[in-house]
Amino acid sequence: MSKPSIGFVGLGAMGFGMATHLVKEGYPVHGFDVFPASVDRFKAAGGIPASSLQESASDKQYYICMVASAPQVQSVLFGEGGIVSALPQNATLILCSTVAASYAQSVATELQSLGRGDIHFIDAPVSGGAKRAADGTLSIMAGAPEAALESGRFLLEAMSDSNKLYLVPGGIGAGSNMKMVHQVLAGIHILGASEAMGFAAQLGLDATKTADAIKSSDSWSWMHENRLQRLLEEDWHPGASALTIILKDVGIITTSARQNQFPTPLCTTAEQVYLSALLQGYGTVDDSSMVRQYFSESVMKVSNTKPAEETAEAQQLVLDMMELTNLVAAAEAISFARYLNVDLKQFFTLVSDAAGSSRQFMTKGLEMIEGRIGEITGSETINDAIVRLEKAVQKARDLHCPLHLGNAAINTLFMAKRAGLGAQSSSSVIKVFGSE
Amino acid sequence: MSKPSIGFVGLGAMGFGMATHLVKEGYPVHGFDVFPASVDRFKAAGGIPASSLQESASDKQYYICMVASAPQVQSVLFGEGGIVSALPQNATLILCSTVAASYAQSVATELQSLGRGDIHFIDAPVSGGAKRAADGTLSIMAGAPEAALESGRFLLEAMSDSNKLYLVPGGIGAGSNMKMVHQVLAGIHILGASEAMGFAAQLGLDATKTADAIKSSDSWSWMHENRLQRLLEEDWHPGASALTIILKDVGIITTSARQNQFPTPLCTTAEQVYLSALLQGYGTVDDSSMVRQYFSESVMKVSNTKPAEETAEAQQLVLDMMELTNLVAAAEAISFARYLNVDLKQFFTLVSDAAGSSRQFMTKGLEMIEGRIGEITGSETINDAIVRLEKAVQKARDLHCPLHLGNAAINTLFMAKRAGLGAQSSSSVIKVFGSE
Repeated sequence: MSKPSIGFVGLGAMGFGMATHLVKEGYPVHGFDVFPASVDRFKAAGGIPASSLQESASDKQYYICMVASAPQVQSVLFGEGGIVSALPQNATLILCSTVAASYAQSVATELQSLGRGDIHFIDAPVSGGAKRAADGTLSIMAGAPEAALESGRFLLEAMSDSNKLYLVPGGIGAGSNMKMVHQVLAGIHILGASEAMGFAAQLGLDATKTADAIKSSDSWSWMHENRLQRLLEEDWHPGASALTIILKDVGIITTSARQNQFPTPLCTTAEQVYLSALLQGYGTVDDSSMVRQYFSESVMKVSNTKPAEETAEAQQLVLDMMELTNLVAAAEAISFARYLNVDLKQFFTLVSDAAGSSRQFMTKGLEMIEGRIGEITGSETINDAIVRLEKAVQKARDLHCPLHLGNAAINTLFMAKRAGLGAQSSSSVIKVFGSE
Repeated sequence: MSKPSIGFVGLGAMGFGMATHLVKEGYPVHGFDVFPASVDRFKAAGGIPASSLQESASDKQYYICMVASAPQVQSVLFGEGGIVSALPQNATLILCSTVAASYAQSVATELQSLGRGDIHFIDAPVSGGAKRAADGTLSIMAGAPEAALESGRFLLEAMSDSNKLYLVPGGIGAGSNMKMVHQVLAGIHILGASEAMGFAAQLGLDATKTADAIKSSDSWSWMHENRLQRLLEEDWHPGASALTIILKDVGIITTSARQNQFPTPLCTTAEQVYLSALLQGYGTVDDSSMVRQYFSESVMKVSNTKPAEETAEAQQLVLDMMELTNLVAAAEAISFARYLNVDLKQFFTLVSDAAGSSRQFMTKGLEMIEGRIGEITGSETINDAIVRLEKAVQKARDLHCPLHLGNAAINTLFMAKRAGLGAQSSSSVIKVFGSE
C-alpha cells in the first residue's frame, strides 16, 4: 500500500529536517514556505514543492504545520487562501509549532466555529533541535482527542524517537503546556550557561577546565554542555540557535504565568536579560553569546595564574552558584507544572532525556515531585544552601560581575527562609511558590 | 569666642560643599584631599589647605571624614600617617561617608583596640546632594553615644537643615542603617525613573507630557522629578551623579541584606542592571543614562501620533507600572528597616522629605508602618493591583521592552498571592517579606 500524501508548511531549520525525514521514509510530502529558496531546497532534497498554501493542503488527508509562531500559525491556517479552507473532510492537522496552550485551544475553537470540526486537530510541539528533526528522533508532546491521536499517530511516530513520543493527557493544549514547562528550564539554563562561564572568567578561571568541572558535577545542565563549544569558540553568526528563538519560547511562558498569576522569578529574570541583549542587537546571534552580558571579551582569553588552592576555591563558587540556581529553577518549573495540572511523572521522564535536563532537576526535582520535602535528616537545608550561594553572589558583587540568575535564586531562597522554611531540606524551596 | 579649628578630608562634590559651607560659617577648616587640585580649589574658596592627612588632623579637636567609600575611610583613618594617630586626646571624629553599619561599628572597635577610646566617634551619613551640602541644609542621620553626639552636635547642626538632623537611636551603626534603608528606595527609584521613561518611549509617548503626568500622580517619586531634566537632555557627561555612586550605595544594601539573609528583590534587580551598564562603560556617566537600557536613542525624539484615547491608555500603563513598582519598593524598604530595628516613625519622617520619597511610600508605606494592612474595605487588593500591573508588563513584553523592576514587582505580588494574600489590601504585600 502506498503511503499517503502529506502537506507541510514551514521549511525552516526544524521544519526542513522533519519534512525531508518524512520524504526519506517514503511519504510524498508537499512542502510550502514563504521563502521560495526554502521550497527549492526542499525540492532538491526530494520533496514535492507546493506553489501556494492552498496547493500544499488540497486533497491532503494529513497536514503538518511547523511555522515559527502563533501569529504565523493563525495566518497560514485561517488567513485568505489558507490551509483550513483547502483541507479535505476528516483531514488530520498536526500543529508542531511552539505556541501557548491557550492559543492551541483557540485553534480548536475556531475550527469548530468555521464548521470544520471534522478536522482531526493535534497539538504536538516538538523538541530536540535540527539534527534530531532530520533523523526522525525528536521528542514530541502530543495532546488531542483520542480519535485525532489515533489518526495522526503514525506520523508522530515517524518523526520521533521510539521512546520520546509523549501522548500527553488533557486534550488540546496539554502538549503545549508540557512543552512550555519544559522550556522554563531551557530558558533559565541557556542564560545559566553564560552566567556560569562569565562569572568564571571574572574570577580569572580557565574556561575549559571550569566547564569540565561543571560537566562532572551536581551543577551539570544539558544546555551548558550543549552550548559550551559555541560559547567558547564564539561561533555565533548565525549560530545554531538565535536569541530570538528562546526569547519567543520564554515569552510564551511569562505571558502564560501572568495569565495564571503565577511567579516565575528566574525565567522572568532570564527574559529581561534576553530583552536587554535584543536591544543591543543580539537578536539573530546565537544565544550562547549571552556570555557577553557578563564578560566583555572571549572567556578563552583568560589565563589562570592563581595557585591550585585558590583556583579550587574560586571554581567551587561557580559550581555552587550554578547548582543552587538550577535547584531553584527546578522548583519554579515543577511548581508551575503542578499548578497547570501537568502530569509530573511524565514531565520528569520527558525532561530527563531532553534539553531542559539538569543534575539538580534529576535529584532534587525528583524529591519535589515525589513530595520528599520538609525536615529531612542528612539533607542540605535551605539555610545551608543560602550560606553557599551567598559566598558566590558576594564574590560576584565584589568583582562587579552581574549575576542575574544567582541573585534571583538567592532572593527566592531568602523568601523561603522568611516564610519559615530555613531548617527544611533545600528542595523545600518549592513551597515558596505556593501550594493551592 | 573664636570658632574651633576643623579638620576635613574628602573634598569631592559633597565634601567640598560641606567644607566650604563651614568656612562661610566662620570656622577655620583645614582641608585635605588626595587630589591636589581639590585642595587648591578649596584654598581658593577660603579654606586652609593641608599638605597631608597628619597636618589636617593634628591639634584638631573636631574632624570630619567625607571620603567616598569604606576602604578609603579605613585608609585615611588607620593607614600609615593617618588621621587617628594625629588627633589630639578627646577629639570628636565625625564619619559622614556612606558605609555599612557593620563597618562603622568596626571603626569604633578599632579605635578601642588602638587605645583611642577617648575619641568621640560619630557615625553620621548625609543625604541631599552637592547643592544642599554647600548650603548647609543636608539631611544627616547621626548615631553615637550620648557624649559624642553632644560634643559634635554644633557641627552636625551647622551642616544640616534645622529639621533634617536626625539623631538616630541605637549608637554607632544606627545612622548608617538609617541611610541604608533610605537608599533602598533611592536605588530602586533611580532605575525606576529610567524604566518609566524608556517604557513610555517604547509606547510612542511624548516624554515631557508623560513626565508631567507622572509628577502629578500616585506614581511620583523624588528621583524621577530630580533626574528628569538630565534624562531628557542627556546631560550625562560627567553629569551630576555618576552611576558608580548609586552602585556603591546599592552594594552596601545588598551585601547587608545577604548578611541578614533578607530578600531585596527590587534593589537587587536594580543592582544587576547597574552592573550590566557598568560593563557597558557607563560607570562615570550620570545615572539617568540608565534610560539607554530601555530605549536606544533619545526619548525626546519620540513624537506621539496616537489619538487621544489611545494615548491616555498607553500613559496609564506607564503610571500603573511605576506606581505599583514603587509600592513594592516601599514594602521592601520598610520590611528591611523593621528587620534591622530601625525606628520606623523616624524613617518615615526622614524619607518624606528626602531623595527616597515617593507618593506610594507616603501613602501605602504609611499604612505598612502603622500596621493598617490586611482585609480593608475600599482598599485596592493585591489581586486588583496584579490586574493593573499585568497589563503594563504584558504590553512591555509585546513591545520587546525590558521592564526589570516591573517584572520583579509583579513576581513579588504573585508570591504574595500564592501565599494567600490576594484578597488583602495592596499594602499587605509587605507580609511576603516575612514577619519574624
